[in-house]
Amino acid sequence: MNGRFNFTDMRHGTSLLKRGFAKMQEGGVIMDVVTPEEAHIAEDAGAVSVMALERVPADIRAQGGVARMSHPDMIKEILETTSIPVMAKARIGHDDEAKVLQSLGVDMIDESEVLTPADPFYHIAKNDFTIPFVCGCTNLGEAIRRVAEGAAMIRTKGEAGTGNVVSAVQHARLVKEEIYHAKNTDSQGIEDMVNVIMKGFNRMPDASEFDINIARTPFGKTSDLRTEVKSILHEVVEMERLPVVTFSAGGIATPADAALMMNHGMDGIFVGSGIFKSSDPKTTAEAIVLATHRYQDPDSVAEASRMIGEAMPGLEIETLDVRMEKRGW
Amino acid sequence: MNGRFNFTDMRHGTSLLKRGFAKMQEGGVIMDVVTPEEAHIAEDAGAVSVMALERVPADIRAQGGVARMSHPDMIKEILETTSIPVMAKARIGHDDEAKVLQSLGVDMIDESEVLTPADPFYHIAKNDFTIPFVCGCTNLGEAIRRVAEGAAMIRTKGEAGTGNVVSAVQHARLVKEEIYHAKNTDSQGIEDMVNVIMKGFNRMPDASEFDINIARTPFGKTSDLRTEVKSILHEVVEMERLPVVTFSAGGIATPADAALMMNHGMDGIFVGSGIFKSSDPKTTAEAIVLATHRYQDPDSVAEASRMIGEAMPGLEIETLDVRMEKRGW
Repeated sequence: MNGRFNFTDMRHGTSLLKRGFAKMQEGGVIMDVVTPEEAHIAEDAGAVSVMALERVPADIRAQGGVARMSHPDMIKEILETTSIPVMAKARIGHDDEAKVLQSLGVDMIDESEVLTPADPFYHIAKNDFTIPFVCGCTNLGEAIRRVAEGAAMIRTKGEAGTGNVVSAVQHARLVKEEIYHAKNTDSQGIEDMVNVIMKGFNRMPDASEFDINIARTPFGKTSDLRTEVKSILHEVVEMERLPVVTFSAGGIATPADAALMMNHGMDGIFVGSGIFKSSDPKTTAEAIVLATHRYQDPDSVAEASRMIGEAMPGLEIETLDVRMEKRGW
Repeated sequence: MNGRFNFTDMRHGTSLLKRGFAKMQEGGVIMDVVTPEEAHIAEDAGAVSVMALERVPADIRAQGGVARMSHPDMIKEILETTSIPVMAKARIGHDDEAKVLQSLGVDMIDESEVLTPADPFYHIAKNDFTIPFVCGCTNLGEAIRRVAEGAAMIRTKGEAGTGNVVSAVQHARLVKEEIYHAKNTDSQGIEDMVNVIMKGFNRMPDASEFDINIARTPFGKTSDLRTEVKSILHEVVEMERLPVVTFSAGGIATPADAALMMNHGMDGIFVGSGIFKSSDPKTTAEAIVLATHRYQDPDSVAEASRMIGEAMPGLEIETLDVRMEKRGW
């Protein structure tokens, strides 16, 4: 590992340590990179981590087909030449891609809807791993399911690769409003919410020709999982936010987009195609870091907005064949 | 047959011997090949058998039209130049393609949904043959119907030719969970399951203009078949698995995919387009064999993942015109 700071040795897989790693990312920008050169641009621009992947979401979307874990050589190369933490993506429900990534020594795994899902019923049982995971969500229930499964960090989903921030805003607002609802409902209301959240774990009976009842999941017995879900929901009500670091991801393309999501209460942002599909990635990266740090100061965001050249062209969401944000449940 | 080990002579068509042949495949990888050269690559890479066919599923899918049993010359050529067992595909319900394949001396017949089905009501009466058959299934009921008809081996279906593992995972999970359901239900629950399974044999009355009642099938009297189905279901409950060797097939394209399916409890895997549509078939074949043998060791699966070049590009399942996995019932 060429002397890079080895986060893996620090971790012993407890939930506290896994969430601690996520905490170190707070307030920062995590950038998708596809080469060591891009990783250096990201690091120099002040990214808190890089996400090593073979193609940015805009290219995955344009090329179609099945998107999988990146080639280990590519990930290794970025790991060996980068001094900030390196994340990598596994397909939803692909335990063995996650095991390979853990074996390669990445610092965090993104169980990501940008890749083609591998399991139609369940996400990865993240509590079985020592490495921390980040997962996407479109609403509060999805976020709580992922935390119950062991996610140490949440990113609200946007429509990745579009440069269109509207989905990111949708999901940030929805999570916030659902938390407000949970805070203001009574104990029956909480029970009802728990029941709805539990349904998301229970897609298999619909696929069976028998009248089956799911009493166990890869995350433990349904009854234990229900207790865990309820306890997380109570934690959410008490904290008035998700109990893990929550970033925004998908469609963020300009410094103003970054500031918007920070002002929506996000703890930080992921930027992918928004940087490396812009006319001047290096400056765009710096400008987005500036706007993310100084999101409360419109003059700084204006300055950041002046820095960049052409933003990525972007896509209308209504015209898409594949809605990545709808993968996962 | 040029001195190759003649599996045909060993067999006398008993269920025990037919299942014994399947048992010899356990833990291994069976590879689709379309030429003797590919068969050699497969054999050298450590395949336990080859599946001789004219086009890999990705090409069948791309070219469309009716897909049938391969030309006998092509099958003979592979039989004569290969020392591991050779399988070949017959259309669902096409008894006479199966008889031709048996006459040619192949070692096992795959009654396969990758070819165009030949019978809308019934599969081949496999108990009438001395040669062993492997059949696909999407769920427990389908698997039990095939075993009742005489299949010596089952492969859970995936969506062949897509390089997308999600359907393989779906059917592995569904079979496992339905077995768990059978294990935990009461005798009335078992009766209900048997009734559901029997319905799958009974598609003809829906097609008739008379109000006909099916009292016989190509597999014997309905009442005898029901007894057989119930006895297999009891065997499943006792063994907590299918009573025959069970492989995974369809959409497996990477070493991590192979490991995932083995970790889902499969006894081995079939790989088709995943190997010969990759950038370096020889190395991909070796890497998939390695990952299948060492599926419990993530470092080995990581090593296998590093060996391969470009995986096959793959197809989004939502965009497909033909869902092969939905053929058969």
